[in-house]
Amino acid sequence: MAKDKKPRRPRAAAPRGFRDRFGAEVTTRETMLAAITEVYRAYGFDPLESSAVETVEALGSYLPDIDRPNAGVFAWEDADEGWLALRYDLTAPLARVYAQHRNDLPTPYRRYAVGPVWRNEKPGPGRYRQFWQCDADTVGAASVAADAEVCAMLADALEAAGIRRGDYVVRINNRKVLNGVMEAAGVLDPDDPERFSEQRGVVLRAIDKLDRLGLDGVRALLGEGRKDPSGDFTTGAGLSDAQAGVVMGFVGAYQGLQGRLAAEGSAAMPTSPEVTSALDRARHAASPEFREERQYLADGLELWNRRMLDYLGELVGGSDTGFEGVSELKEIHEILYGLGFKGDRIRIDPSVVRGLGYYTGPVYEAELTFEIMDEKGRPRQFGSVAGGGRYDDLVKRFTGQSVPATGVSVGVDRLLAALEATGRAGAEAEGPVVVTAMDRGRMADYQAMARELRAAGIRAEVFLGGGNMGKQLKYADRRAAPVAVIEGEDERARGVVQLKDLALGARLAAEIETHEDWARQPAQIEAPRGDLVAEVRAMLARRVAG
Amino acid sequence: MAKDKKPRRPRAAAPRGFRDRFGAEVTTRETMLAAITEVYRAYGFDPLESSAVETVEALGSYLPDIDRPNAGVFAWEDADEGWLALRYDLTAPLARVYAQHRNDLPTPYRRYAVGPVWRNEKPGPGRYRQFWQCDADTVGAASVAADAEVCAMLADALEAAGIRRGDYVVRINNRKVLNGVMEAAGVLDPDDPERFSEQRGVVLRAIDKLDRLGLDGVRALLGEGRKDPSGDFTTGAGLSDAQAGVVMGFVGAYQGLQGRLAAEGSAAMPTSPEVTSALDRARHAASPEFREERQYLADGLELWNRRMLDYLGELVGGSDTGFEGVSELKEIHEILYGLGFKGDRIRIDPSVVRGLGYYTGPVYEAELTFEIMDEKGRPRQFGSVAGGGRYDDLVKRFTGQSVPATGVSVGVDRLLAALEATGRAGAEAEGPVVVTAMDRGRMADYQAMARELRAAGIRAEVFLGGGNMGKQLKYADRRAAPVAVIEGEDERARGVVQLKDLALGARLAAEIETHEDWARQPAQIEAPRGDLVAEVRAMLARRVAG
Repeated sequence: MAKDKKPRRPRAAAPRGFRDRFGAEVTTRETMLAAITEVYRAYGFDPLESSAVETVEALGSYLPDIDRPNAGVFAWEDADEGWLALRYDLTAPLARVYAQHRNDLPTPYRRYAVGPVWRNEKPGPGRYRQFWQCDADTVGAASVAADAEVCAMLADALEAAGIRRGDYVVRINNRKVLNGVMEAAGVLDPDDPERFSEQRGVVLRAIDKLDRLGLDGVRALLGEGRKDPSGDFTTGAGLSDAQAGVVMGFVGAYQGLQGRLAAEGSAAMPTSPEVTSALDRARHAASPEFREERQYLADGLELWNRRMLDYLGELVGGSDTGFEGVSELKEIHEILYGLGFKGDRIRIDPSVVRGLGYYTGPVYEAELTFEIMDEKGRPRQFGSVAGGGRYDDLVKRFTGQSVPATGVSVGVDRLLAALEATGRAGAEAEGPVVVTAMDRGRMADYQAMARELRAAGIRAEVFLGGGNMGKQLKYADRRAAPVAVIEGEDERARGVVQLKDLALGARLAAEIETHEDWARQPAQIEAPRGDLVAEVRAMLARRVAG
Repeated sequence: MAKDKKPRRPRAAAPRGFRDRFGAEVTTRETMLAAITEVYRAYGFDPLESSAVETVEALGSYLPDIDRPNAGVFAWEDADEGWLALRYDLTAPLARVYAQHRNDLPTPYRRYAVGPVWRNEKPGPGRYRQFWQCDADTVGAASVAADAEVCAMLADALEAAGIRRGDYVVRINNRKVLNGVMEAAGVLDPDDPERFSEQRGVVLRAIDKLDRLGLDGVRALLGEGRKDPSGDFTTGAGLSDAQAGVVMGFVGAYQGLQGRLAAEGSAAMPTSPEVTSALDRARHAASPEFREERQYLADGLELWNRRMLDYLGELVGGSDTGFEGVSELKEIHEILYGLGFKGDRIRIDPSVVRGLGYYTGPVYEAELTFEIMDEKGRPRQFGSVAGGGRYDDLVKRFTGQSVPATGVSVGVDRLLAALEATGRAGAEAEGPVVVTAMDRGRMADYQAMARELRAAGIRAEVFLGGGNMGKQLKYADRRAAPVAVIEGEDERARGVVQLKDLALGARLAAEIETHEDWARQPAQIEAPRGDLVAEVRAMLARRVAG
């Protein structure tokens, strides 16, 4: 730690956990976001850009790690404004914006927002401290019709971005159902909501880990606690067996319903392996000849949804909150069904909990159901790319008046990674035509060529560095240039240019150093200077056709 | 200052100096930036998004207020990474990115970048602490052909954004010319560049204030100093009369050349009032019938450019640096002239200095030449909307090796304000068709209507709030909805919908509370439910045609 002898030169590196995006990485994301926001717009949502910097008090503390106030946030003290921070999501700022401008905004206010958010967390592989979100929220609509609308829009947005139907499912739950179960288990007292809140936090986090720990792991965390394979012990919620049993009935609702259906031998319902693999099969059924099978599966999964809603009704027992939660889910389900969203796209799923502390009603999550290979070459489900829910108390913090709100956040980088994994992220952008500069004294002429090409709608640039023809053509290659234009002294005298098809010639580029060698390559043609634009255009057209 | 009794509720306000942008403000900027970046792309520039957060040491201190290190920056100390800061421009991060990734980037590297930057300055009217820039830079090209290219591209980008030819001029100077004058005046010693640097700083800032203070004010600041009308005294650079005379020859080059031309009575050259008003007239000459006059003015201004280059050659005397600076300006001028950029778009102008400390060669600035009314109703020139220059030493800070670079930054918010002032910022976006919700129990049906409209490419939403028909139609009005769809119990029974043209009906909305009243309005038609999409489309088409 010899820090006393500081190097004079600054380190040329982004801070850890921050990254730069180059070229096609940026344009691919732009294309994807344009497709998503077009869907948002079609649904009547208007753009909002709030400031990246907020007061710490306005942001509030809603990140999952509730033990450390302001943990996870980049914050600093401003001489005039007190503590300021970079926004950690786009929802908390929306609550502030709505509270501030509510007299000038329509009610309900539908808005979408796109941009970076910042989390002051330990960076790790694929885990960045700046990442993009693409949110859509409705503020001021108490009806769960607003939640249903967001779920439908989320499905449409994913398809617009390039995720095929069958490759995703929007899973929906309701915090009220969970609260109903908590009531039934005796860890939520409707008359004293603060009581047991710590225990409920442990329960919530345990359920959120179902994917990773399985039913036994969650059960252990509901009771005394759990020792993980490394020997670390996590203290549990300390529920009695009876209490834990009630919660586990909810956590294991999927398996519970499966078991019941198997016992029934219900003919109308896909058997449990069918349910499990239905999505896999549905996505292979995108072509017309599979439409019938697809329809069958959608109907089967739809029936599953209906049975799940009834099953949840049983689990919440006599809890008013739980009953309300199930009723809301039924209403959401009915609206979505009416719009043609069946079980292949929309799934009632009690395992959806969502980590953030501010949700009060329906919660939803878009999961990609196809498998990708992880770093170690093992197949795994891609997982969640978007999530959201209803947060009726976030604006109230500011105004004192309850303002219902619901909305979704798309994890832009994860969705982009998913599109890249499926090869549907848009082709790598082609580079510009490169006009080589054989004679530095004739830069104006080379610039004029590039300008003519641009005027014809062809991306073009002049080589502005130093080096011989070999170096210039290597540069063109690196730029993924489709065509290089060459005009040396000889061509100039004869009033012609050489046009080089670089894809064809790329493999030879490393070996060629002189202009004369290039002239012998088959992928090169000579054209009158006056035909520059027409010939380049023809060459580009041949590439597209070929 | 009773701060001890802190209110429990957070204040619903963005921090001072930060603002939110709504709806059309966001989309108008997007449209403008798309037009500009399309030009950048056509010139072969690739997008780059660097992180918003950098280490303080990587950013360096290049903001104009050089007296306070790290002044003007939002910074905080990170436990692991040391001091971090929000970027204050897009140029300093580019130098870091290039130094970090230079082995993976082509050379020269042309990149563009768009996004917010942050300045920790006292906010004021129209002065924000977060604003957007849209930059294009070429790294690794020593030739001033790169500077010429950026100037040409800047002119093209402004026109693409909607600024008419004649409404802007790209003014070009060279720091080396100024340095040559400094040498001639004896305040720059080529063998000891650090010497007199404080005096030169005062001179630079004085010249930068020419617009505001006039020649006499600048002259005072070159000498002992200047007392402003409020009585405040600013200490000057302390130059002798002889030294100040040399600098003033440069500062007053415009007037000097005007005087010389008047004495010559040169027939080929516009007289000085003609030069002064040429731009004003040029912009009124955009229509074809004025093409000839336009050409004459462009040629006249072009001749002015040539004479100015010669005149500057005289002013720098025997200074090698000054001679080099003028030669570079001549080369830039020649390339631009060859590309058809004449004096109406490109102006050699020694008064361009640029505040930032890191420029080493050509500097340039795009000025809008039309007048707008200020807050007090007085006409004033719109002024600068973009600027840049060559900064050959910025990458060297990291690598130790000199890497030439040049580029421009467009002030996005100022350019947007200019487009709004000229009424060419794109029309206010039309709101969605609003499907009113007469019967809350039939939400699924209303959602289905909106969905049908969207499938036909029509932006549409269902009203999700509470309230009677009057309130719903007021909402639709606030949303700038072109059409409202109404289906109550009666319509439902008869299988029809009411379609309301809201622009026509808007003025009546305030008075109407019941559904029956609406049915009598002339701007309302009744259509079979099955014709919903066709009828709405026809109504929208009539609006566009009307």
